[in-house]
Amino acid sequence: MLRGKPHIVVVGAGFGGIKICKLLAKEDVEVTLVDRHNYHLFQPLLYQVSTSVLSTDEIAYPTRSFFRDNKNVNFFMAKAKGVDQSRNVLMTNHGEIPYDYLVLAAGATTNFFGMKSVENNAYGMKTIQEALAIRNHVLHEFERGDKPYRTPADRRKRLTFVIVGGGPTGIEEAGAIAELISVQKKEFHHLDFNDVKVMLIEATPHVLPMMSQDLQDEAVRVLREKGVDVRLNTQVVDYDGNVLKLKSGEEIPTSTVIWAAGVKAVEFIQNCGGEYARDGRIWVEEDLLVKGAANKNVFAIGDCAGFMHGDMKRPLPTVAPVATQQAAVCCRNIMRLIKGDANLEKFVYKDLGAMATIGRGKAVVNSPKMTGFLAWCAWMLVHLIRLAGAHANFTVAIKWTWNLVSGIRLGRIITNIKLDSGKLSIPKVEEDHSNEKGVNEGQPVILEKE
Amino acid sequence: MLRGKPHIVVVGAGFGGIKICKLLAKEDVEVTLVDRHNYHLFQPLLYQVSTSVLSTDEIAYPTRSFFRDNKNVNFFMAKAKGVDQSRNVLMTNHGEIPYDYLVLAAGATTNFFGMKSVENNAYGMKTIQEALAIRNHVLHEFERGDKPYRTPADRRKRLTFVIVGGGPTGIEEAGAIAELISVQKKEFHHLDFNDVKVMLIEATPHVLPMMSQDLQDEAVRVLREKGVDVRLNTQVVDYDGNVLKLKSGEEIPTSTVIWAAGVKAVEFIQNCGGEYARDGRIWVEEDLLVKGAANKNVFAIGDCAGFMHGDMKRPLPTVAPVATQQAAVCCRNIMRLIKGDANLEKFVYKDLGAMATIGRGKAVVNSPKMTGFLAWCAWMLVHLIRLAGAHANFTVAIKWTWNLVSGIRLGRIITNIKLDSGKLSIPKVEEDHSNEKGVNEGQPVILEKE
Repeated sequence: MLRGKPHIVVVGAGFGGIKICKLLAKEDVEVTLVDRHNYHLFQPLLYQVSTSVLSTDEIAYPTRSFFRDNKNVNFFMAKAKGVDQSRNVLMTNHGEIPYDYLVLAAGATTNFFGMKSVENNAYGMKTIQEALAIRNHVLHEFERGDKPYRTPADRRKRLTFVIVGGGPTGIEEAGAIAELISVQKKEFHHLDFNDVKVMLIEATPHVLPMMSQDLQDEAVRVLREKGVDVRLNTQVVDYDGNVLKLKSGEEIPTSTVIWAAGVKAVEFIQNCGGEYARDGRIWVEEDLLVKGAANKNVFAIGDCAGFMHGDMKRPLPTVAPVATQQAAVCCRNIMRLIKGDANLEKFVYKDLGAMATIGRGKAVVNSPKMTGFLAWCAWMLVHLIRLAGAHANFTVAIKWTWNLVSGIRLGRIITNIKLDSGKLSIPKVEEDHSNEKGVNEGQPVILEKE
Repeated sequence: MLRGKPHIVVVGAGFGGIKICKLLAKEDVEVTLVDRHNYHLFQPLLYQVSTSVLSTDEIAYPTRSFFRDNKNVNFFMAKAKGVDQSRNVLMTNHGEIPYDYLVLAAGATTNFFGMKSVENNAYGMKTIQEALAIRNHVLHEFERGDKPYRTPADRRKRLTFVIVGGGPTGIEEAGAIAELISVQKKEFHHLDFNDVKVMLIEATPHVLPMMSQDLQDEAVRVLREKGVDVRLNTQVVDYDGNVLKLKSGEEIPTSTVIWAAGVKAVEFIQNCGGEYARDGRIWVEEDLLVKGAANKNVFAIGDCAGFMHGDMKRPLPTVAPVATQQAAVCCRNIMRLIKGDANLEKFVYKDLGAMATIGRGKAVVNSPKMTGFLAWCAWMLVHLIRLAGAHANFTVAIKWTWNLVSGIRLGRIITNIKLDSGKLSIPKVEEDHSNEKGVNEGQPVILEKE
């Protein structure tokens, strides 16, 4: 053990990772927090970055700032690669880190369910980079669609935005894009907005599966009111970047598919020497110890942990409250083990309810049941309270109020972004259309009919 | 002419371009504003993005938003490629745009004075992408420098930040980086901050050439007080990305050189069929018509225009007031020509003075002469008033006050950025150091001495 103190390594600076480090900081232990990014991301508001409402630094908070006063918590920016449980060592791209106790809180990534064509051409919604890529792409498609040499079919394809997945992320993204369009409408003086469409596709008969039927219906009603084409019982089978193919055989020409239809544990988790669920989550016991952990010192919490015990008939939802509740239990269990107490606490999930906003001024909340503006206020309050950083709270509150009143979206800035994966590259503004027919034939480009 | 109305094409949505479009919007003309980005950039505050104080959307404002109520101003997002004066046509990567009158307001880019090694390895300070690249790189070097396997020399190289150029941009950048370091100091618990250095290099004997000697001295004094190593009369000759070579023969190991030592007109200007100054500016007559313009209908204003008439013994400074004052005269001259009046107004520059901030709470202003906190308040007021967008004003004011009081920098987020030029690529976090000596040899990585 280092300096005589137990060394606890935590992988992932999400809700679970930050929470357990804050709790462990109060104990007489050394903590190393490993993450490949230098910030904690407030994922529930990612959709607001992707739709130009908030800036990145309002939902991303420097991880080190959480531990300014905790000298026993050390941040180590690196990409975790795997765990060698026999040697009690975490492998990273910046070397190995030996641990006495290890907490896997590495989170989840987008699940494309094996559809390679979709994975290659659709946008995920899990990282800042992806949110910025969506923002840039959607804004850019408006600029491209506005060019007079486009054929009507090409223009419609560029201005059809499809969101797949009727969970909170899909609902919120669809509502926010619909509203973004109404902002754009005021500033594209020559564009025919009949060509602009938002579609929400859900494979099951229901959106927001965690909510009651009447709240589901309300969400669909509000979205349709905003002009979103909501399609239930609709399955995607293929997307080549230009045409989205449905199981029914229908083909939808679109250059934008945002995939919010599923998550799976991040790949690193597969290299941790455990047993795995179908969605890649590592199975944990009731005490959150990784199933079959050789030395009884590897825990997993949050989105990457597969917990199915007691009353749970299916895996826990991938939401922040699960991660933070597990972090608290995990911390107590680690401290028990350090003190030689093998009698560990069992985790029991306390469901705090769910909420989803549907554009500005409207939301649905399931406990207590609320809809409309009141629900939106509740949603706003809960998210502001949970947002890290006193200052961000304040500017975010201002932006939301401002956005509610004026509908202004200041974030509509197209920057060039390189994705972590390197997978989706953003088409450059420098693309060459200088020889496009209809422009070089002496037709003034602004001669579009209004 | 289009729709019977004169068609004026403006290239560039900087201070000059936006101003003339706003003025022309009130006239009975059609205007097309061309820019390769969809936003107007408030360049004087770029250094605050590069040092994690402000977010991008606080200094970048959607260009179309300026013209929401001006249906006769059309924004056309494209990269200007050249002008064919004989055909009255602007060439872009999205086709040709015929004009009746053309205003070149395309701005300036970094001037490396032909030093290819510096151009390839140093950061410019003219675009959002560059500012974000600097922010990411500086923050990342702290994370890299914090890794225990670094040799002391490697660590010092990564934590030495050199700014070249003693103009306002260089001064402000150096002051802001010095302060960023004091924020980092609170959060890197194991890093020896004696290894962290900021250096400001200026080739002439003076910083802030537009100011009086006592203000120059004050600026240097404040910077040195903040720990900046200010070197006057010091010339750079080479930089390979690792070692900065000075004319004196001295070599400074550093992985960060920020080049704020000069500007030149953007390349596009060379293809406009005019006569050019040594820094690439297109020469204009006193009435702002491009020198030798075949049809007397091509104007140039702002950073890309070379104006040297009357009392002017050297080219006008590349600052916003020159561009906006020229925009006003240019607009009046275009309207005179449209009305058949060949008697054009001559441009006379009215110098409004200069100001530069040196970190939070301190600045120098030359008319009326002010230093210290009072000057900083004046600086803040002027920049807030000029910042586009009522909302940004408000959040920026809050951030500055917050930053002044608490020293917090919320923008310290490392994202992956792709530069417009594609020239400088940001090293990926995924770099592989897993086999670094000293880490894999069973040495716990957190065993650094405090």
